[in-house]
Amino acid sequence: MAFTSVPGGVCAPRGFAAAGVHCGIRHNHDKKDLAIIKADVRCSAAACYTTNKVHGHPIDIDRAHIADGYAQAVLVNSGNANTCAPGGRELALATCELAAAALGVPKADILPSSTGVIGQAMELAPFERGIPAAAAALDHSPAGSLAAAEAIMTTDTHPKQAAVEFTLSGKRCRIGAIAKGSGMIHPNMATMLLFLTTDAAVAPEVLQGILSDVVPATFNQISVDGDTSTNDTVLLLASGLAGNAPLAPGTQDHATFTAALTEVAEAMCRELAGDGEGATKLLECTVNGAPDIQTARAVARSVISSSLFKAAMFGADANWGRILCAIGYTPGDFDISRTRVWLASAAGEVYVCENAAHHPYSEEQAARILREKEIDIRIDLGLGGATAKAWGCDLTYDYVRINGDYRT
Amino acid sequence: MAFTSVPGGVCAPRGFAAAGVHCGIRHNHDKKDLAIIKADVRCSAAACYTTNKVHGHPIDIDRAHIADGYAQAVLVNSGNANTCAPGGRELALATCELAAAALGVPKADILPSSTGVIGQAMELAPFERGIPAAAAALDHSPAGSLAAAEAIMTTDTHPKQAAVEFTLSGKRCRIGAIAKGSGMIHPNMATMLLFLTTDAAVAPEVLQGILSDVVPATFNQISVDGDTSTNDTVLLLASGLAGNAPLAPGTQDHATFTAALTEVAEAMCRELAGDGEGATKLLECTVNGAPDIQTARAVARSVISSSLFKAAMFGADANWGRILCAIGYTPGDFDISRTRVWLASAAGEVYVCENAAHHPYSEEQAARILREKEIDIRIDLGLGGATAKAWGCDLTYDYVRINGDYRT
Repeated sequence: MAFTSVPGGVCAPRGFAAAGVHCGIRHNHDKKDLAIIKADVRCSAAACYTTNKVHGHPIDIDRAHIADGYAQAVLVNSGNANTCAPGGRELALATCELAAAALGVPKADILPSSTGVIGQAMELAPFERGIPAAAAALDHSPAGSLAAAEAIMTTDTHPKQAAVEFTLSGKRCRIGAIAKGSGMIHPNMATMLLFLTTDAAVAPEVLQGILSDVVPATFNQISVDGDTSTNDTVLLLASGLAGNAPLAPGTQDHATFTAALTEVAEAMCRELAGDGEGATKLLECTVNGAPDIQTARAVARSVISSSLFKAAMFGADANWGRILCAIGYTPGDFDISRTRVWLASAAGEVYVCENAAHHPYSEEQAARILREKEIDIRIDLGLGGATAKAWGCDLTYDYVRINGDYRT
Repeated sequence: MAFTSVPGGVCAPRGFAAAGVHCGIRHNHDKKDLAIIKADVRCSAAACYTTNKVHGHPIDIDRAHIADGYAQAVLVNSGNANTCAPGGRELALATCELAAAALGVPKADILPSSTGVIGQAMELAPFERGIPAAAAALDHSPAGSLAAAEAIMTTDTHPKQAAVEFTLSGKRCRIGAIAKGSGMIHPNMATMLLFLTTDAAVAPEVLQGILSDVVPATFNQISVDGDTSTNDTVLLLASGLAGNAPLAPGTQDHATFTAALTEVAEAMCRELAGDGEGATKLLECTVNGAPDIQTARAVARSVISSSLFKAAMFGADANWGRILCAIGYTPGDFDISRTRVWLASAAGEVYVCENAAHHPYSEEQAARILREKEIDIRIDLGLGGATAKAWGCDLTYDYVRINGDYRT
């Protein structure tokens, strides 16, 4: 870690409180289903959304509410995506009104977000109970972030949070995040829902510029199953309470903030991919020696998206032919003849492919390496200086079980 | 069937013999691993190959041997793809020499083809035994085609053949096919190996034109797992022994031949998709009302390629939100608001989605329909007159099992 990791998730930066409650959107009383993240002050806001032509009703409202560059609270439910759902737009607007009243924040500064099943009408009644309850439970401590992270989980097996600390022109700043996966994850956007907070002072257009630079290198480089969700959303709120001079492009502070945001984003990518539906292994693919960044990113994504390679990783089978095949069908015209491949983990590293052909290695050592929980796939195309990473997971029996009967 | 189905696979048209033997490329003595298809006369030849930048050594040789538009024999092995394999080009050329000697056909009229594991060196010794044995076993009867279809199988659960009969200017003609799947199947090309024969008289450039028209509508519309193989090949040999007047574009005969080839191709698509690795169900998606053919094809492919939808079909779960999601992330800019979706099978039909939102239906009836082995997904985009089909299969525990440990 180049930056100091700190606890507290979205509550780590100054000026943010969060809460998560159960209000009845889900029938399971043990599962929280409603989260609020509220800033003490109006924040600069930036966002990236799914590229799916089918998208959730809340996303239309988000876009409208963030159009002026500012927002103050995020309202999120799990259990229902409010997508292709009758009356979904009106319902999302009604939840914003409830949140505005409970939080004392203008309706136009509330960003709604939903995740869960598609095509089922959502009821307002749970929100009428849940929004005041969540507002009353808002907490600036790490417990608030944890509750919110729990409330947005769907098939995730654990809540996902990260935060780092860094310095901008002498002022201590933080960036925090919570996220949920874990199926229907594929560029663009990879994450279904990811919320970032910072206390750095950043003007809206600068904040959006940074987020738009970081997302293609991180969240758009995750794939769990090749399916781009209808509700993928990344939101970033900046409170400015750290007191730094507002970031200007081209400055050291701008570079530092971008690096810190990238680090948080990469940490969340590893969390999201490693907790992909049914996953037993995190796959991290690093491509070096690519002729350009687009090729580097595309090759890395291609490898971690291959069903055949993902199944081979589940079986701890060093079937590097699957990797070469996936590199080969990556769109774009580039030479594959100098490709080298290594497989690595905490148990060591094995060099399996040289110049696109077999490189002698011990199958026993390879199997030992691939039995670990985190597998690095290192590829050098030998063509240039561009590099990229992508994150994925293995394809397992449990992925099939989870999605064979998702709705029951 | 618009045309008469006949037995005999690639031996159904006049002038073709075939054979399949075990020669030791595979260690399992019960599994044939070498096939030959030989025409009595030199044939017009057409081909389509994988678009993967990594491709088998035999494909380079095929391209060279077919460049003049003619060929007389196809030599195919399973058990080793001869791809990313040391000395693979020299070995493929040596097998052509062996076949030329055994068949009495010029080496430049032999088309070699390989399927199996990538990255392992192939030995010549099994071919030295196997090619003369296969040449001696060549058979013009349906038994010859069946033996060849068996010899090219990898993880296929059954041999795949089809043939139809039709009339060109008063002359009875036939088209026959054998194919193998069944993993690493995704446009373009979908089929790993598919060999077609006909006794119709067709000049090479006309034959290639027809094949190039039929492949995008059929073989490129199959997906088993989203992985485009390194060795996908479709070959079509035309002996001319039916005695028809050579086909000319724009004529009724040309249209009839194209329709017959399409019918054989669609039959093989259903065979290949339905026998996808681990599959329990064939999925056939028909898109109507698309603004253009590209959109129709892309939407149909997107639906049958979605891991989430495939897993839902395995679970007989009428989760139509997965279908809408896959339509929505199909590349291209089109309106999804008028989309209607039906699910159908031998057990009936259910209307699940109207104007991109829920249409009331009985979950019981839907479950009954989805418990069948062949599921039709019917989509109407309500935007225009273009239509297309795509074929896929469900995603199952067995897909994971087969590919978790493919090499052992």
